[in-house]
Amino acid sequence: MTESLAALSDIPPGALPSVHRVENTPAEEAHPMIAEMVHAVYPHDEIYGDYCTLQGYVAAPPRQVYDYLAHTRSLEEWTFSLRGFTEIGDDGLWLGKDLLGDGDTDIYARTRACPEAMTVDYHCAWDQGEHLWMIYLMRVVDAQLVLDKPGSVVLWTNCHHPFYDRNPFPEKALAGREVWVGDYWDVFHPGHELELENLTQICEYRHSRGLPLTPDWL
Amino acid sequence: MTESLAALSDIPPGALPSVHRVENTPAEEAHPMIAEMVHAVYPHDEIYGDYCTLQGYVAAPPRQVYDYLAHTRSLEEWTFSLRGFTEIGDDGLWLGKDLLGDGDTDIYARTRACPEAMTVDYHCAWDQGEHLWMIYLMRVVDAQLVLDKPGSVVLWTNCHHPFYDRNPFPEKALAGREVWVGDYWDVFHPGHELELENLTQICEYRHSRGLPLTPDWL
Repeated sequence: MTESLAALSDIPPGALPSVHRVENTPAEEAHPMIAEMVHAVYPHDEIYGDYCTLQGYVAAPPRQVYDYLAHTRSLEEWTFSLRGFTEIGDDGLWLGKDLLGDGDTDIYARTRACPEAMTVDYHCAWDQGEHLWMIYLMRVVDAQLVLDKPGSVVLWTNCHHPFYDRNPFPEKALAGREVWVGDYWDVFHPGHELELENLTQICEYRHSRGLPLTPDWL
Repeated sequence: MTESLAALSDIPPGALPSVHRVENTPAEEAHPMIAEMVHAVYPHDEIYGDYCTLQGYVAAPPRQVYDYLAHTRSLEEWTFSLRGFTEIGDDGLWLGKDLLGDGDTDIYARTRACPEAMTVDYHCAWDQGEHLWMIYLMRVVDAQLVLDKPGSVVLWTNCHHPFYDRNPFPEKALAGREVWVGDYWDVFHPGHELELENLTQICEYRHSRGLPLTPDWL
């Protein structure tokens, strides 16, 4: 195979000893290496420390689930505590409230959706709308392709942005508020699981009854 | 807030008791519910049974990492065992070899990439190219946005398609081959982690030395 000569031909042999490919890591070596990486259980921080990713199946058509999510105000239905969004700019910036914690915290959101890839990214922030650093990366996938059944798979990732650990704009916070959104990082996974379950229930209810997934009020 | 009247107004109150929103699930109830969902450790199957998702940081520019991944033949560099791809159709179908297991297994692949969302999906299958059901869903995200530093975050999900559990085209398998790709499902996570590490090392080596991430031979 001439292509095995071309692959990585710009990198001197031995320069990347921790790159494991069948050419430098025979099966006898790869199998135990991989077996040692499998564990019966994994600690919380290893799984949800740097990223909070979850995914799930929704028994509703992917294009309709995507269209629904692409509406910023759908957040008012399926999230636990985001409410009352109003569009405040001509560049798709919305202002709402996060009723989590002490309540009445301003949350700004701009949704960037790509119909081709069915990605929906909510760029959000508490307290200010200039730097939207709380980013919810979502994607709807056709379950027919990946699970051999009708419906949708929803992927959802948040990355552990350093601002979760320290509020970069403390002067913008509501006077007297004692919580910061990052205080909840350790429970993002169960919180998002609960919200993904909300999304699933709402979409499946509407789809199974022939209701539009995206209601008029959005 | 009038919007709380509109949200879910097409769904009768009480129809979805397991939808938890701040309106029907006060903090006193939500906090212990969420706390009970957090565990010190999680079993392998709960985390990697239905989906195999991983993600990681790569110190190289997101657009360049995306462009590299969007080339089907990049798989020959960063995967453990996919090699020797040749384009065999005018609709982007490639044929290569998966050297895993007994080796010499045909693997077909069609890459669907979306530059706007920076998603790269490899639609693959062992043995035949008509039904590409092994789908590697990848996405490159600008780390500046989600981690406040230059570079890329790479997201990668495989879904547990039922064909992993039973070869749907046994007659297409190489005579005498004793393994099936789905036999490896339980070690997909460490296998993919090793490959994501390969990708990271290769991209970071090239970027740090001013080499093009996508070499000429691709």
